[in-house]
Amino acid sequence: MPELDKIIHSPARLKIMAALMALGPSDQLDFSTLGTTLGLTDGNLGAHLQTLEEAGYIKIEKTFVARKPRTFVRTTTRGRARFEEHVEALREICKV
Amino acid sequence: MPELDKIIHSPARLKIMAALMALGPSDQLDFSTLGTTLGLTDGNLGAHLQTLEEAGYIKIEKTFVARKPRTFVRTTTRGRARFEEHVEALREICKV
Repeated sequence: MPELDKIIHSPARLKIMAALMALGPSDQLDFSTLGTTLGLTDGNLGAHLQTLEEAGYIKIEKTFVARKPRTFVRTTTRGRARFEEHVEALREICKV
Repeated sequence: MPELDKIIHSPARLKIMAALMALGPSDQLDFSTLGTTLGLTDGNLGAHLQTLEEAGYIKIEKTFVARKPRTFVRTTTRGRARFEEHVEALREICKV
């Protein structure tokens, strides 16, 4: 059976990646929208995003919008490729 | 986003359930075939099977074949239903 990517497979990270994959390759989502969409606390979301960034699957950008700090997240080329491989592996395992 | 069943979602248990789901509802697979197919050690496979049995998703039967102890595993109705719900949730999350 094909291998599953342990970094992507965790339920929260699978959902984060899926939410980001729904955007265009260069589009980004802001931290609070992502947290609200997925029902994750800031601390939990932050930890999972850090894991994904360390793996090179996403890019986190901190910036200021109207003088307020905002955090934006987007997938990397590597992250999109790994997510697609992961979904392909799930498909093969589950025969979906 | 839909919830994922944490018991089924673990990579090893997802593969175990998928392998058992490939059989008919009342068919069973023997422990060593399952371990070889999935590349799991006896200890690892045994631990995951116990978790699945405690959740009521599989049934483990120990018996003797030609005087040798053999362990057989099959899904329960509940296990099959939960696996199908899980795959549906994965489908919805990953848009596959």
